[in-house]
Amino acid sequence: MLTYVFEKNDVPLYEQVYQRIKGDIISGNLKPGEKLPSKRTFAHNHGISTITIQNAYDQLASEGYIYTLPRKGYYVADVGELKSVTRQGNISLDIKMPERPPRYKVDLSSNRINPDNFPFSVWAQLSRKILSEKSREFMEVSPTGGIYELREAIAEHLKSFRGMLVDPNQIIIGAGTEYLYGLLVQLLGADKEYCIENPGYKKLVNIYGQYQIKCRYASMDDKGITVEELRSCGADIAHICPNHHFPTGITMPASRRYEVLAWANEQKGRYIIEDDYDSEFRTNGRPIPTLFSIDACEKVIYMNTFSKSLTPTIRISYMILPVHLANQFYSRLSFYSCTVSNLEQYTLAAFIRKGYFEKHINRMRLYYSRQRRRLLNALEESKLMRICRIQENGSGLHFLIRLDTSLSPQQIEKRLQKESIRLQALSDFYLSPGQEGDCAFIISYSDIGLCIYHQLFGYQCTMRRRSI
Amino acid sequence: MLTYVFEKNDVPLYEQVYQRIKGDIISGNLKPGEKLPSKRTFAHNHGISTITIQNAYDQLASEGYIYTLPRKGYYVADVGELKSVTRQGNISLDIKMPERPPRYKVDLSSNRINPDNFPFSVWAQLSRKILSEKSREFMEVSPTGGIYELREAIAEHLKSFRGMLVDPNQIIIGAGTEYLYGLLVQLLGADKEYCIENPGYKKLVNIYGQYQIKCRYASMDDKGITVEELRSCGADIAHICPNHHFPTGITMPASRRYEVLAWANEQKGRYIIEDDYDSEFRTNGRPIPTLFSIDACEKVIYMNTFSKSLTPTIRISYMILPVHLANQFYSRLSFYSCTVSNLEQYTLAAFIRKGYFEKHINRMRLYYSRQRRRLLNALEESKLMRICRIQENGSGLHFLIRLDTSLSPQQIEKRLQKESIRLQALSDFYLSPGQEGDCAFIISYSDIGLCIYHQLFGYQCTMRRRSI
Repeated sequence: MLTYVFEKNDVPLYEQVYQRIKGDIISGNLKPGEKLPSKRTFAHNHGISTITIQNAYDQLASEGYIYTLPRKGYYVADVGELKSVTRQGNISLDIKMPERPPRYKVDLSSNRINPDNFPFSVWAQLSRKILSEKSREFMEVSPTGGIYELREAIAEHLKSFRGMLVDPNQIIIGAGTEYLYGLLVQLLGADKEYCIENPGYKKLVNIYGQYQIKCRYASMDDKGITVEELRSCGADIAHICPNHHFPTGITMPASRRYEVLAWANEQKGRYIIEDDYDSEFRTNGRPIPTLFSIDACEKVIYMNTFSKSLTPTIRISYMILPVHLANQFYSRLSFYSCTVSNLEQYTLAAFIRKGYFEKHINRMRLYYSRQRRRLLNALEESKLMRICRIQENGSGLHFLIRLDTSLSPQQIEKRLQKESIRLQALSDFYLSPGQEGDCAFIISYSDIGLCIYHQLFGYQCTMRRRSI
Repeated sequence: MLTYVFEKNDVPLYEQVYQRIKGDIISGNLKPGEKLPSKRTFAHNHGISTITIQNAYDQLASEGYIYTLPRKGYYVADVGELKSVTRQGNISLDIKMPERPPRYKVDLSSNRINPDNFPFSVWAQLSRKILSEKSREFMEVSPTGGIYELREAIAEHLKSFRGMLVDPNQIIIGAGTEYLYGLLVQLLGADKEYCIENPGYKKLVNIYGQYQIKCRYASMDDKGITVEELRSCGADIAHICPNHHFPTGITMPASRRYEVLAWANEQKGRYIIEDDYDSEFRTNGRPIPTLFSIDACEKVIYMNTFSKSLTPTIRISYMILPVHLANQFYSRLSFYSCTVSNLEQYTLAAFIRKGYFEKHINRMRLYYSRQRRRLLNALEESKLMRICRIQENGSGLHFLIRLDTSLSPQQIEKRLQKESIRLQALSDFYLSPGQEGDCAFIISYSDIGLCIYHQLFGYQCTMRRRSI
């Protein structure tokens, strides 16, 4: 005879009945083949409704803990194999995790996005709608380049926003640009010479290094990477950010763009990877056509990501391949499944299609340009300006300040860190030695709150006192 | 003077006002600096409420299309840079997409999951809750191994379900096992000899091939891969499915497991990758301890995926690294961000924590075992049994049938395809020539409906007539 005492809490009663009986079956208190009380008896003895017991028995039966014999009743199943083989305690082993960067009161080195700006409720609503409408599609493995709806939505967005004409099948969706770089190495070959901008995005050295590729570095002048450098380092593949270079902020002018394209056309097997990661946030002047749009010879691979424009949690990036490379991709790499979940692909497609993405971008562009304006105003009015020159071109999520000081950037970084202020020196982004003296700092303003101004500009006196 | 005619449809009125004004700004009908009518005038002239206009103006202002001057009113902003550079028409280029497999009336070759079984509403509910609670976390880049909550939930699940004791930091989350194999090659080195089971999972040959690795093949006896074969092919890394081998269905007995572990221990740099992809669906007998659990010398890397146990749309897989490899991973590869979105990681963590995963697995195990039982019964009662022997061990999502026939498997496949029935021959999974005569077929029953029985067993006469 089963007798339980049920608690009055927010766990539904049928769930409590289910849990208790299941526990007794697993622990062996109820033996295989043992008959359970009828629903009516159980309900009567415990003073609860028959429906509650019915629900609990149904759940137990559907999970295989009990079975029914018609006109006889419910019996305990033989669940030897379900029993927990639990040993006691959790383990914790001697694993050395990568160090977390310390938290600073004022952090101008991170281009983290302010969560208040992401339309979570719209995203949740679209996602719920798709979950209820597309269940069949969720059981299918996503095709290698991503679902067509999303690629089509991206193609339409690029047409109206960037003036780019793209066939959706040229677009390859992947879980982050890091993943896509890996695919690109597999497509283009690890035997090629990959060249990146100096200063530049250090992580590329790590990623390419995993494929035994030793990156070449090409230094830049005030128009960006130079063709002489590309030539002298023997590059096959040039990895560049022509629209808003990180960290220098340089926008490559049209003349240089055509020079670089001409370089790529000189030889078979040369390609340009165009990273357009923050082009959405350009605020001044007309958008500059992408290298991809002015390339007539299938030499440019375009890359962009929604991790920057929406939220880093959405791991959706894409690359656009020239036609002959797209064909090579499908013939050689289509055994890969797409790395992004269908649910998020459909949600993002709807988000773009219904105009939410454009609205979000417009709102964020305005938000960031106000953040920048406010910070620039504060800087310009501050005493810091006596020793500091601002270098910015109205785009992206950061600008540079150059300091006129005898201290090295590392000395300044250290002093600021003591006051819990984090600035990142431009020199940290030089990939080869020789530029350490360049005393410039990157100011990322995407997630700075109002409180920061007080701390930052209240601090300027300290900075002066310490002879910066 | 703005005059618009608004339509009576399900687009909210404020949205229509917003769209029309925005359109006129972009097309240049409204010029930069032009004053907009006051909210009151606009509302009055169009016979709609001031609040509606207020909402539309607010939206336009927040996106930067218009601006306000205090006590003066609303003005059109200079949005040169927002104007569409749209050219006409979509393009469609000559891209040869990978061929889609034809649809069959009866497809016993696919282990697609039946969508009716996935608890979409629970998933949607958890996901909505997380979206509203965790917004700050969504703006952070996911740590390289995945978010801790999910790894902890997986560790707890493995403890109670598989008797495995794992430190959450040993678990590395990734967007699909294909991606994780790539990470493993980066961790273990592309200069090692990787050996896979023959017959086996062909895609591994493709994936490892991308890293210029030529896989070795080791054939199997009735207990699985043999140590002699591992030795003779000179393997460093052995990739095996000891718990339910695909496609043969073999479960490796304990004796062979210890032999294989002993082989790994003979030499530094030898490892076993244990793929446990469908262990959740074992129905008969006690669960067999994983190789990982009985490995005392840090030689086993465990792999599993939620794409099989939940839905292929959830691209979440994980690997468990021995401690020294976990440390190597964090020191060498932690520059990678996790490829799975935080939202789905948090949702899955809650799904496991709140017991939904266990319930789902139990329900699915019962569902699959019924599917198998029903199909086996139908087979046993059918005339097919005169020439057919069933080979199964009560596990996973497929079994084998062996036919006594003078036809080759390819001939049988072809004949069946004409009747729109798809069976996959075991011989398709042999990685080297020599086993083509083995006339066995894989029967995957995870998503076969009732209608299939009629077609399949109504067809047996035809099969006999054609002298199979």
